[in-house]
Amino acid sequence: MNGIENSGLYSLTHPRSVAFWGASTNPTAMGSVLMSSLLAMGFQGPVYPIHPRDREVKGRPAFKCLSDVGAPVDLAVLVLPTQLAPDVLDECGRNGVKAAIVVTAGFAEKGDEGRRLQERMVAIARKYGITMLGPNCLGVVNPDAKVNTMFMQYETSAGFIGMASQSGSFVTQMFDYLQERDLGFSQAISVGNEALTDVADCLEYLGNCPKTKVIALYLETVRRGRDFVRVAREASQKKPIVAYYVGGTRAGGSAAFSHTGAMAGSDELYDGMFRQGGVIRACSVEEMFDFCHVLGRQPLPQGNRFVILTHSGGPGAAAADAADRCGMGLAQMSRETLGRIEALVPHTASVGNPVDLTFNRTPADYMQTIPEIILSDDAVDGLFIYVILPQSRARKSFIEITGDPQGGAAMADQFVEGQCQALARVAAASGKPVVAATFCGRSEPFVQHLEAGGIPVLPSPERAVRALAAAARYAAAKRGFA
Amino acid sequence: MNGIENSGLYSLTHPRSVAFWGASTNPTAMGSVLMSSLLAMGFQGPVYPIHPRDREVKGRPAFKCLSDVGAPVDLAVLVLPTQLAPDVLDECGRNGVKAAIVVTAGFAEKGDEGRRLQERMVAIARKYGITMLGPNCLGVVNPDAKVNTMFMQYETSAGFIGMASQSGSFVTQMFDYLQERDLGFSQAISVGNEALTDVADCLEYLGNCPKTKVIALYLETVRRGRDFVRVAREASQKKPIVAYYVGGTRAGGSAAFSHTGAMAGSDELYDGMFRQGGVIRACSVEEMFDFCHVLGRQPLPQGNRFVILTHSGGPGAAAADAADRCGMGLAQMSRETLGRIEALVPHTASVGNPVDLTFNRTPADYMQTIPEIILSDDAVDGLFIYVILPQSRARKSFIEITGDPQGGAAMADQFVEGQCQALARVAAASGKPVVAATFCGRSEPFVQHLEAGGIPVLPSPERAVRALAAAARYAAAKRGFA
Repeated sequence: MNGIENSGLYSLTHPRSVAFWGASTNPTAMGSVLMSSLLAMGFQGPVYPIHPRDREVKGRPAFKCLSDVGAPVDLAVLVLPTQLAPDVLDECGRNGVKAAIVVTAGFAEKGDEGRRLQERMVAIARKYGITMLGPNCLGVVNPDAKVNTMFMQYETSAGFIGMASQSGSFVTQMFDYLQERDLGFSQAISVGNEALTDVADCLEYLGNCPKTKVIALYLETVRRGRDFVRVAREASQKKPIVAYYVGGTRAGGSAAFSHTGAMAGSDELYDGMFRQGGVIRACSVEEMFDFCHVLGRQPLPQGNRFVILTHSGGPGAAAADAADRCGMGLAQMSRETLGRIEALVPHTASVGNPVDLTFNRTPADYMQTIPEIILSDDAVDGLFIYVILPQSRARKSFIEITGDPQGGAAMADQFVEGQCQALARVAAASGKPVVAATFCGRSEPFVQHLEAGGIPVLPSPERAVRALAAAARYAAAKRGFA
Repeated sequence: MNGIENSGLYSLTHPRSVAFWGASTNPTAMGSVLMSSLLAMGFQGPVYPIHPRDREVKGRPAFKCLSDVGAPVDLAVLVLPTQLAPDVLDECGRNGVKAAIVVTAGFAEKGDEGRRLQERMVAIARKYGITMLGPNCLGVVNPDAKVNTMFMQYETSAGFIGMASQSGSFVTQMFDYLQERDLGFSQAISVGNEALTDVADCLEYLGNCPKTKVIALYLETVRRGRDFVRVAREASQKKPIVAYYVGGTRAGGSAAFSHTGAMAGSDELYDGMFRQGGVIRACSVEEMFDFCHVLGRQPLPQGNRFVILTHSGGPGAAAADAADRCGMGLAQMSRETLGRIEALVPHTASVGNPVDLTFNRTPADYMQTIPEIILSDDAVDGLFIYVILPQSRARKSFIEITGDPQGGAAMADQFVEGQCQALARVAAASGKPVVAATFCGRSEPFVQHLEAGGIPVLPSPERAVRALAAAARYAAAKRGFA
């Protein structure tokens, strides 16, 4: 595990026992909701609610204070009125607790009095050697360790995205979003006000986490710029880091300050830091996860020369325009490659780049033979393919051809699956990244088949192209550092 | 109907009878597929397949040539080998057909020989006074008239978006996309190579179409710049026009040329044309329909001073950052307004702009009382609200509170619906635009309830903010022209 067991963040994300302040018999209290998430996750160790009056919380015996527990506690979760938090943290320290998640808000983000309270918390944590997350955070989710202290229940399997976020919402409210896209978190950490544990710490930890293939950062500020760059540079040699930074504008920076007391800086400053750290910047939450999706599922491109393959002119032109705007390069294929494609397509097609078939003469050519020809050209570093294979249309065609409603539908389903598997095989054999896009919904079987074959399916040509460009930027940064 | 019945495009989109070339007993032939779409739409008038050998196509008697039909034909749809198209168009002219959709490709977009053939088609159409759409197009969809000549079946109801597109795919492949978003086309026209009928003609027509509330344009070029600006300026006084232009980059322009023979121009040139015409520019297909969604469903803002309402800091900061980047202004609410909000929120909240509740003390405050207070401030032109009310969570809470699985679930469903209806009422009463965003999927009941109440729910804060900014830009352009 690269020694991450010795990191304070490891004890936060891998507790063997948890004590909860703020969970009670009131099921809608924030503390009760977070404790429910932990229990629903199937956490294996003991969970101790600490409550002044309630004697049982969610079927677990509750304790008046920590010393009543009479067993070791690894992690304390504090969901308390602001004024009470420091004393409870001190109680944790005195009882040997080594990790604490302070969910409670109202600290540095609320002005001077809150800042003083927060400083007291830091002093207590330092005194006892407690790894403290927050305050004003939602804690952690670690599906493999069956830990989740967030607001929503985590109901999907573990994924490859390791996230550190200055917004708890952008962790917990994305659980379903990721599940719908066949993605998930390896671990995710909501850092809140970062009084003690900050994004740079998380970056170092996630860089060493063997289950994290790509790191996502939601940032409103970076508190230790030099350390961030140093740690990012080290982590980005091992895996891609995608950051969504919202503090670069006047309004964004001011909202960030109200949110987590963050002092934001200009876009130029942050772009410089990201460049030095090999961090790829995303422009929205959707884009951050698009980039993670592609970077986690596909090999890195050797360069920035891609081919756009389409059977529809509009999506092809839109992809080409987006490519120019985001710095994705269009490959110049060899004469031989162009000749081999030309032999397979109708006379209305254009075989430059985009390769636009206008329509498929033979469906297998589009999803197999032509991608194979394109990817075998040394001048090509990867492929974007626009796909639309809706089940209803395929079934209708096969039923019309065969005259057999049941048999035709089954044949259509097999055909669609076969096409997707063929593309996935071609992509895998090439060792080059292949990304698809469609406007069809994710419940379409072809989307599921392509994802099952490892090919990310993004919801528009523009977004797919931007993700490929991001992959090329990361690959270039990584080569630059090597 | 503002005299649109006299327009050539009216005869194209409202035929009483249709003749089809290229439909045959081969169900996968392009012509057969397009004729299927027309029949599946429930077209009421006669449909005449014209075929040299087949005697029956899709249950309709087929004819060797047009003169054999022996009844008037309003619209001809040509899906033929390129070389045959001119003679068939001439046959149409001789037999009194007044409108023709030429689906056939291989004309100006394929070089000099194709260009000459296209010119011949234009001469024939002019000679007989035929309103010709295309070549290299997919025709029209007009749900109210039960007309659809496109590749996909149109299975949803008519909507308020009137579209003219230089890509047929961006009409037909968006049917399901729009349906999933509770949207639809009033009419949509795929113009292809625009040999005779171009986007400016469509713009004039859709500007006068009473069922079209907002016009969407997908553009790779504008062939008659002055006419386009004149017609756009006139139409944009009546309704918003949203254009997605992809020809402004080297790669986009070159792909556009291969696609429809379009000579694209620089972004600066097109931005100037759009400004003069009061056209709002979108940067992707998704964004084009986001803008249409908001512009068609909500009143126009009086100015550019919006409020961001959230209970989660991250989405609020992301919205504020996006607002600055896209030119959406943040309102300065009055002291009185701020005081009234302050009285309703927890001490962790911030009541500036974004208004961030951090959590809901009373759910009704978030969806009703606070929006009402905000929208009643004269300094506020509209509201963005971040919403997350997943059914599973609401049911779980209510079941926990009531201890009654069935009754609790029903109460939760009623609660969610009531909240959404309250927000919709507040929004409608204010006369100001309100747009919501969520990362939850569209199948969530709260998304459906909000949409049913007329409130657009976009899939991210950033996209909602950009759409509100677009509405403010359009409102300013309209005021500027008045």
